[in-house]
Amino acid sequence: MSSIWGEKVKISVFGGSHTTAIGVTIDGLPAGEKIDMEKVLKQMARRAPGQDLAATPRCEKDYPNVICGLLNGFTTGAPLTAIIVNTNTKSSDYGCVPELVRPGHADLTALYKYGEYSDFRGGGHFSGRLTAALVFAGALCRQILERKGVIIGAHALSIGKVKDAEFDSVNIKTELLNKLSSEYFSVISSEAKEKMYEEIEKYRLESDSIGGVIECAAVNVPKGIGEPMFGSVESVFSSILFSIPAVKGVEFGMGFGVSEISGSENNDLYRVNENGEIITETNNAGGILGGITNGMPIVFRLAFKPTPSIGKEQKTVNTKNMENTSYTVSGRHDPCIVPRAIPVVEACAAIALINLL
Amino acid sequence: MSSIWGEKVKISVFGGSHTTAIGVTIDGLPAGEKIDMEKVLKQMARRAPGQDLAATPRCEKDYPNVICGLLNGFTTGAPLTAIIVNTNTKSSDYGCVPELVRPGHADLTALYKYGEYSDFRGGGHFSGRLTAALVFAGALCRQILERKGVIIGAHALSIGKVKDAEFDSVNIKTELLNKLSSEYFSVISSEAKEKMYEEIEKYRLESDSIGGVIECAAVNVPKGIGEPMFGSVESVFSSILFSIPAVKGVEFGMGFGVSEISGSENNDLYRVNENGEIITETNNAGGILGGITNGMPIVFRLAFKPTPSIGKEQKTVNTKNMENTSYTVSGRHDPCIVPRAIPVVEACAAIALINLL
Amino acid sequence: MSSIWGEKVKISVFGGSHTTAIGVTIDGLPAGEKIDMEKVLKQMARRAPGQDLAATPRCEKDYPNVICGLLNGFTTGAPLTAIIVNTNTKSSDYGCVPELVRPGHADLTALYKYGEYSDFRGGGHFSGRLTAALVFAGALCRQILERKGVIIGAHALSIGKVKDAEFDSVNIKTELLNKLSSEYFSVISSEAKEKMYEEIEKYRLESDSIGGVIECAAVNVPKGIGEPMFGSVESVFSSILFSIPAVKGVEFGMGFGVSEISGSENNDLYRVNENGEIITETNNAGGILGGITNGMPIVFRLAFKPTPSIGKEQKTVNTKNMENTSYTVSGRHDPCIVPRAIPVVEACAAIALINLL
Amino acid sequence: MSSIWGEKVKISVFGGSHTTAIGVTIDGLPAGEKIDMEKVLKQMARRAPGQDLAATPRCEKDYPNVICGLLNGFTTGAPLTAIIVNTNTKSSDYGCVPELVRPGHADLTALYKYGEYSDFRGGGHFSGRLTAALVFAGALCRQILERKGVIIGAHALSIGKVKDAEFDSVNIKTELLNKLSSEYFSVISSEAKEKMYEEIEKYRLESDSIGGVIECAAVNVPKGIGEPMFGSVESVFSSILFSIPAVKGVEFGMGFGVSEISGSENNDLYRVNENGEIITETNNAGGILGGITNGMPIVFRLAFKPTPSIGKEQKTVNTKNMENTSYTVSGRHDPCIVPRAIPVVEACAAIALINLL
Repeated sequence: MSSIWGEKVKISVFGGSHTTAIGVTIDGLPAGEKIDMEKVLKQMARRAPGQDLAATPRCEKDYPNVICGLLNGFTTGAPLTAIIVNTNTKSSDYGCVPELVRPGHADLTALYKYGEYSDFRGGGHFSGRLTAALVFAGALCRQILERKGVIIGAHALSIGKVKDAEFDSVNIKTELLNKLSSEYFSVISSEAKEKMYEEIEKYRLESDSIGGVIECAAVNVPKGIGEPMFGSVESVFSSILFSIPAVKGVEFGMGFGVSEISGSENNDLYRVNENGEIITETNNAGGILGGITNGMPIVFRLAFKPTPSIGKEQKTVNTKNMENTSYTVSGRHDPCIVPRAIPVVEACAAIALINLL
Repeated sequence: MSSIWGEKVKISVFGGSHTTAIGVTIDGLPAGEKIDMEKVLKQMARRAPGQDLAATPRCEKDYPNVICGLLNGFTTGAPLTAIIVNTNTKSSDYGCVPELVRPGHADLTALYKYGEYSDFRGGGHFSGRLTAALVFAGALCRQILERKGVIIGAHALSIGKVKDAEFDSVNIKTELLNKLSSEYFSVISSEAKEKMYEEIEKYRLESDSIGGVIECAAVNVPKGIGEPMFGSVESVFSSILFSIPAVKGVEFGMGFGVSEISGSENNDLYRVNENGEIITETNNAGGILGGITNGMPIVFRLAFKPTPSIGKEQKTVNTKNMENTSYTVSGRHDPCIVPRAIPVVEACAAIALINLL
Repeated sequence: MSSIWGEKVKISVFGGSHTTAIGVTIDGLPAGEKIDMEKVLKQMARRAPGQDLAATPRCEKDYPNVICGLLNGFTTGAPLTAIIVNTNTKSSDYGCVPELVRPGHADLTALYKYGEYSDFRGGGHFSGRLTAALVFAGALCRQILERKGVIIGAHALSIGKVKDAEFDSVNIKTELLNKLSSEYFSVISSEAKEKMYEEIEKYRLESDSIGGVIECAAVNVPKGIGEPMFGSVESVFSSILFSIPAVKGVEFGMGFGVSEISGSENNDLYRVNENGEIITETNNAGGILGGITNGMPIVFRLAFKPTPSIGKEQKTVNTKNMENTSYTVSGRHDPCIVPRAIPVVEACAAIALINLL
Repeated sequence: MSSIWGEKVKISVFGGSHTTAIGVTIDGLPAGEKIDMEKVLKQMARRAPGQDLAATPRCEKDYPNVICGLLNGFTTGAPLTAIIVNTNTKSSDYGCVPELVRPGHADLTALYKYGEYSDFRGGGHFSGRLTAALVFAGALCRQILERKGVIIGAHALSIGKVKDAEFDSVNIKTELLNKLSSEYFSVISSEAKEKMYEEIEKYRLESDSIGGVIECAAVNVPKGIGEPMFGSVESVFSSILFSIPAVKGVEFGMGFGVSEISGSENNDLYRVNENGEIITETNNAGGILGGITNGMPIVFRLAFKPTPSIGKEQKTVNTKNMENTSYTVSGRHDPCIVPRAIPVVEACAAIALINLL
């Protein structure tokens, strides 16, 4: 592991914030899958910066140039590689000054790991820009999943203390997921979305940033997916989800909420429904028991930390002379990463699911 | 993946609740590591059932019989396998009736995945008993880590709504971790421990169960461990932690708490300390930035669901005739799995760390 | 990699010549596969020592004790582990004297790798005894393959300069393969077998040993198995075949013979046969083109070196005082490993194929 | 596995004969390794077509465009990706007619595996052109190895029945390896090289092709590299070597020759040399015992089949109407692939070694 993930379908991500290009190779896609590139670009656009005040005003053109693996609109079965050229990189903004390590960023840990040879420009390989490659890969996987009926969607469950409605985890409509996964900054309640914008704007005006939680669901996932013990759905999902920069927590179903309730409250009781299928009356398990899917919606949540790049002066250390100092990060930043991270979470869910199916 | 985990040091876990034996093979341990078997047995004893009212009264003798890989008390460099014979298995208690699937257990999902051939006796390969193999493997890894100065310890942060003190994440004493990791049912505050016992006893008397949260820390972990993007410390840890039965959430550092605070609150500011080392004034990151360790304590928390085996009648489905019915699970159960899960969490942390070093 | 092999079905081999036991865990077998243990024991017996003068007179009872993964004669889908107790180990014969490293053995390289902590008794984890675990695992995989029509068989193509008939690679009868794979010391020509016995006896009487070649075939392998580029059938097969101790060469189809012929001689021309299937008129490719099966028999050959344990005095080095000296290996040895290696080769082919299917 | 290989340093190869570009991502290279791009281009040139009559007259410009992972001439520690644009692709030459499957090529097996969606243009992902990506990756690995003293070189041991001198396997000079690895069509004996050219020309004039054997060596490889059992040096090397198109056999040290000799002839006897190091008097083992290096030169040989593309009419099948027919492959072909394959073999050896170190 490192920048390659997966067993059946492997994703190899490459590039950095200021390299010539970033990209991704997807190895193991079945042959003959029709790829609708418009849909892919739509997902890329959901993640792209510069859409509104909640995001950074950079105008990167996240256009994925597919150089192999696709012929006449269908996958060939060979590795599929897409390159996204970095067009709008102002190196001066970020500066190549690892001596003043930015708090909350990977500057210092990159310095520990790679020494002075690390590419510090704009966060290098640690940059959130790499998630564009994940969105591309996920957009392909998602089209294959959709053909099997599996629908994925996510929304901002909270920004700071502003909450959206939660999914009704026993009964998540595909219409809702399809709507969420086609919007920029997906939120179930339009009222909550308004308040979230206000919350973000508040922090932006203070040259600060704010965190949030994304809730994601996948419905119509076949029963019996996942393996004991280390191949549990939770293990596979969390392994890729914790690769998204800024994620500090992952929970499934009721998640940390299960710690405060009793077994009689938490156990999802079985019932045969009108279609003769076994369902559960609640879905505290998030569709997963013993690491294996039970046919109920898979539901999980991720905690995103506030963007570490803030306009405020912060204490740091000069790693050259090892003296305490302070530093103000300049440059273009997202006051909240959550809106743009929603399609990234959906993409990772799609990549994880295609490996589990 | 499935029942094998790891890259440098691989753990292969086998067996089920009612098979002849369970066991584990550890492949990749360096040669010449002295193993103190008394210390290993101490860790096994911490997880073993029957220690007090908080645990099931079964008297399994979790004695690991090392059949290879160890010579005169030192690792040979070849795979090390230990077998733990299942001595006290009352099949009648559990029953082999997959037609009445137990809510909250893996019975139904095992049926979906493996059909009637699955070993349903006592949960089979899904049984919590398998964690004895993890504790054994972790006890060996831990001794190797300790020789490098790395110390791991965990405690019950909460049982239901009863809370223990949190770790002071910037300054966790090795003495505290050593104390916690040598006790049964480790809790920082003795007062909280009393209350937790009462809480568990309350649910036990109601034939019910209760969940909780375990907090774990590792100190003196070398800087620069972990890989971007998919080999992040969080990815590697969560991948094995979510393999522990009953875990529904994993968070690092401030975890889900980061979603409600600003960047200026969350960023851990750098400072050179009296020893000339770069430390952070807070440790909201849990010792990990960009997926790589920064030398501060690694801190993470896991949510455990309440034991699904409860003595109350529960609605379920008869999978043979597909009719709704109800069911009361008999047998011996833990009213709370958290006390016995503490050494399992520490063991998984040790296995994860030895793979990252 | 190291002592674990495979992706879909993983084999984890453990133990050494003089450890309490050796064994193997097979992870990933489908549930519900009926296992005929008599057939498994038959394969174990083919490899077991002491059958005739061609083999060592040790009387190990290679009885595999299945401790989990099998219930009422069917696989459960959980890891299947078998333990083979080492009953007849005379440590004095082998001696634990790594200071006099045996030529042709792994003593010196084990010393380089693991130092004095390596288990040198009888070759430790490098011992040919470990192949009993492979035969066990292969015997299970083979039964699953047979149910799909895939039949595997091997024979001693040569012992020293004595040659057996080669397979008719375009038309290998399943009857022949079934016959070969049920015999001890399988040879197509009974006349050649007689001469091979004589050849081996000649070397045995001289306290020497002799090498040979094993040819193996698999028929009815589905078309389209294998992956470009690194997942080629040849890559996967060779990866496990070179793990058999004493193998120094692996070739597919015409193998090294292709180096001396022209393209017009080597190309296997296509033809539609009476059943409307595309076959090739020759099978120089050994059933594999571009790393992928074409439906023709898979044919490959392995070169086995002569057993390094010989009764003659040999020059070696005392690794303690680093002086040149000489040494005579005592103990019980096979004058030719080929007869007993035949079922090992078949087993590895079965393990490889079940991973490719 | 499939188009990704390696554990510590992973190689992900992508592209096909007629896609926009081919390329490779190398994941896991240490940071701070100086890369001399002139040396890399020299290796690329050795493999490039069109150098003389022995090779195809195509004029591809195999220029590797490094898009990330390299900064100011040093590796950054992040994945390093190079793209080689396909500039000179005459699709008409190859034709996209899978209905007439070319004997000896992967056309039919690709059709079996991927169906009509496979990219059949010029062999697609099965094309020998992909080896340019291997040479690029190997050229980088080689520079890192050279800094540790490890030198790799290969030569054409035979073309058809014309033989070159073999390596003196106990004493291979680095000068010889350096000379071989800087030439196009490396042969030890200049006289043999002349005859090889004549041999190739003979087959070229007959619109035919011819096979050969490449012998490769690596010296100064540290002792103790490789793992029992499945991580043996032979397993790791063969796994990548059999991925080179046209390879049908791999042998180490004396290889298939060991099958005809006795143990007393084959065992490499130990001796302390003038430098106080343990060496072997012969090197039949090819530097590997028990799968682990003993410090002697690693020596191995690969059998290459004659290029399947020949100008002669050949019998084949029309896969559309399933009728027998015949076919003459037009286009530009190598009458012998061996000269251009030499740097590919060296590259794969470098990639394998950097994973083993």
